[in-house]
Amino acid sequence: MLPTEQPVDPQSPDARLRTSERDVLRDALRDQSERGQTKSDIILLSVQRLLRRGAITNLSKMLGRMHPADAARVITHLSSPKEKREVFELVRGEAKRGQVLSELNGDSIQQVLADLLHSDIAWLLKDLGPDDVAYILGFLPEERGKDILALMKTEDSTEVADILKYPKDTAGGIMTTEFFSLPEDATAQEAIRRLQQATDAEMVFYIYVTDKDEHLVGVLSLRQLLTVPPATPLKNIMMRDVMSVAVDMDQEEVARQVASYNLLAIPVVEKDGKLAGIITVDDVVDVIREEATEDMLKMAGAIEEDSVSKSSSFGAAKLRLPWLFTNLVGSLLSGAILWYFRMTLQEVVAIVSFIPVIAAMGGNVGLQSSTLIIRGLATGVVELSDVRTVFFREVKVGLLMGLACGVMLTLVGWAWHQAFLGMVVGTSLVIAFLVSTSMATIMPVVLKRMGVDPAVAAGPFVTTANDITGITIYLSLATLFLDHLR
Amino acid sequence: MLPTEQPVDPQSPDARLRTSERDVLRDALRDQSERGQTKSDIILLSVQRLLRRGAITNLSKMLGRMHPADAARVITHLSSPKEKREVFELVRGEAKRGQVLSELNGDSIQQVLADLLHSDIAWLLKDLGPDDVAYILGFLPEERGKDILALMKTEDSTEVADILKYPKDTAGGIMTTEFFSLPEDATAQEAIRRLQQATDAEMVFYIYVTDKDEHLVGVLSLRQLLTVPPATPLKNIMMRDVMSVAVDMDQEEVARQVASYNLLAIPVVEKDGKLAGIITVDDVVDVIREEATEDMLKMAGAIEEDSVSKSSSFGAAKLRLPWLFTNLVGSLLSGAILWYFRMTLQEVVAIVSFIPVIAAMGGNVGLQSSTLIIRGLATGVVELSDVRTVFFREVKVGLLMGLACGVMLTLVGWAWHQAFLGMVVGTSLVIAFLVSTSMATIMPVVLKRMGVDPAVAAGPFVTTANDITGITIYLSLATLFLDHLR
Repeated sequence: MLPTEQPVDPQSPDARLRTSERDVLRDALRDQSERGQTKSDIILLSVQRLLRRGAITNLSKMLGRMHPADAARVITHLSSPKEKREVFELVRGEAKRGQVLSELNGDSIQQVLADLLHSDIAWLLKDLGPDDVAYILGFLPEERGKDILALMKTEDSTEVADILKYPKDTAGGIMTTEFFSLPEDATAQEAIRRLQQATDAEMVFYIYVTDKDEHLVGVLSLRQLLTVPPATPLKNIMMRDVMSVAVDMDQEEVARQVASYNLLAIPVVEKDGKLAGIITVDDVVDVIREEATEDMLKMAGAIEEDSVSKSSSFGAAKLRLPWLFTNLVGSLLSGAILWYFRMTLQEVVAIVSFIPVIAAMGGNVGLQSSTLIIRGLATGVVELSDVRTVFFREVKVGLLMGLACGVMLTLVGWAWHQAFLGMVVGTSLVIAFLVSTSMATIMPVVLKRMGVDPAVAAGPFVTTANDITGITIYLSLATLFLDHLR
Repeated sequence: MLPTEQPVDPQSPDARLRTSERDVLRDALRDQSERGQTKSDIILLSVQRLLRRGAITNLSKMLGRMHPADAARVITHLSSPKEKREVFELVRGEAKRGQVLSELNGDSIQQVLADLLHSDIAWLLKDLGPDDVAYILGFLPEERGKDILALMKTEDSTEVADILKYPKDTAGGIMTTEFFSLPEDATAQEAIRRLQQATDAEMVFYIYVTDKDEHLVGVLSLRQLLTVPPATPLKNIMMRDVMSVAVDMDQEEVARQVASYNLLAIPVVEKDGKLAGIITVDDVVDVIREEATEDMLKMAGAIEEDSVSKSSSFGAAKLRLPWLFTNLVGSLLSGAILWYFRMTLQEVVAIVSFIPVIAAMGGNVGLQSSTLIIRGLATGVVELSDVRTVFFREVKVGLLMGLACGVMLTLVGWAWHQAFLGMVVGTSLVIAFLVSTSMATIMPVVLKRMGVDPAVAAGPFVTTANDITGITIYLSLATLFLDHLR
């Protein structure tokens, strides 16, 4: 979605409600004695109450005063597809309904559009930018998308098809083809006239200048136009150094560039240098949020943001099980090691009291290190060339923390069972810390070098591997010094 | 930092190097046989090599062609403060050095400015926006900051002091006071003239309109000015509904608003409605990244992004130890439970083979659920009012996954030891999954209601609590059916 040219809808919707709605809102507030309820919670509750009461007129008025993004949030959080459709239909005007649609998530889009005719959908999409249309159609079955495109204006549908041909997570897939560009021979005056007529390119950040082959050759700002004599040709005032990205660049890399160079928009060019579209900063904001969410979930062994409240429980279980199985096998290995050392355990049963500590702590220390590295690699705080420095630093931190926890454990072991067991536990912990900080630092880097997303595998692998190592070290030491432990 | 009005420095720096630098670059590339080296790694290596060779002229030329953000990245990644200072001094021109400074992180700012005179620092800061100056001074001792401010132009230093008086993580603390505003009686023509003269407000997104008391009363876009007769007063064309935030609003909430309404900038107003500053979308991008990083690290029990490569190992260990100690106590409790059930363990030693599985799996399933909820609450995908739905869904997912893993474990137990032990393990796992998904879903919500950041405590607490519960369930069941396990 293009950034809004003007901030709209000034106050939060609930501040501007009329009397009848205010009653409902007060009811909702009274019922919610718990603290921590946010405004959007309260709005959502009011909408649900109005729906239940069938107060369609009030509901429609309330929606009329909402920003499309707020209306979309309400719809997303309604629990049944039927309610979603009802509320969506109450939003007045195709233009606004289209905007609401462009702010919904995939599941809600499917639910809301399920019963609509192709021609109705085409009508809803007619005022949206091609990137928004591409986003929405991306959630519908391919056949249906094509049929809807066929019903739209040829010009619009060609632009949408241009975007749809690129993968969703590349520059080409998130760009918009509605940008403002002019030939290099145009004058400042012509540019201003064209700007006044342009209704398509809703928000103009930069004016891109192209040569006769539509190759991007320069850029200038809107304000520059106002400060030169009207007859000046653009090529005399434009900056020739334009930062741009290739259509096939990964969206994460695009986001990194826009963020680090503080750009409002970045042009996207084809392999031959032809200007294909632009990516605006507000879409970059979405990408940054998505990628952070993705990394967090991958580290926890869960996939897809949407799975929280939308996909089926079966679907979610299927997505999360592979990681759990990996972990199951890993912890069965730990179990096999315990079984292997069963004689030791049976002889000195006190040893079992420290198994959970050794197993858990190594994994936890590793998680701290790998999270730091993974997030650092994602944000550019850590570069692959820093690895040696970071590695030695993490191992040193691991050693320091291992010594602190090790001493404490030795004392606990001494007080609880006997001094020698305490020493064995403490020493094992220090070694386990050293091993797990090393592994946790190296694994993400190795994965990144291999071209695998470090977040995917670092979590489960490192944690499981560390558990196994910790237990092996502890039980080996205990067996070695068994004579002193009896 | 204000967004750049024009994209600069088009190609990546290394694409534009002269011969001598190219040699160094080729050397660097030859040495790096590993795959996965990024361009910024290679640039960093070249800079280090040029530094070591003392090739100051080449280095200076190379820096001259770099975007300030790239130069800042190189400086951040140099390991010694001495090298950082050397490279920083090689950046030519105060204006560019100032920009580089505004892109550095806190530690590098301190290191680079350590030996400089107050007057030199004031000189570096003179062309920066007040928000950047406030950012930089925020990392210096308060006294030093005041002395430097005293050396700057009064007008500039007042603006900086205005920002510094607000906490760093609020709207007031991240806003810039350089915005473009005009009285409501001004005409379109006057506005254009003022725009042509304005050198301060580097990038104009929206034109804010104020009444005689400097209260924010309207907004209009630059392009609107071009499409009306020159004599039109602004109050006739402005939108009166301006979305704004209060100076004391949390930066996370500001970011959420700018992101969800697709704004380029949002005005910040004092309690009495007086316009105090604006926050631009590029700063919002930084906030979103920071907050995501913070949440991730909190969940892993590590604090501060900077701790990866900058703070001392001792400092880092001190930051991370509290969480490890919590975990230590928690896992010692698990150990105490094992010790309590030692008779059971001694009688049927095969029971130990499944302790790691039971302990690890409950925690892992809980981590999946709590990550989904925590991230959902942070991005607005989950609202507090959704809790009931999400809770039942997560428990259902937990049950499904518990059944899948439980059946598998029963079979493993049967094959490995005996059928009845397998059934005890499988059943324990299903119960442990149910308990931990419930706890992991409820805890973040309870914490959020209590006004505590859900990310802080959910990780360690939930994981440790789940470990304890899992082991207790397993050993209780095993003791109960001990006769069948012998």
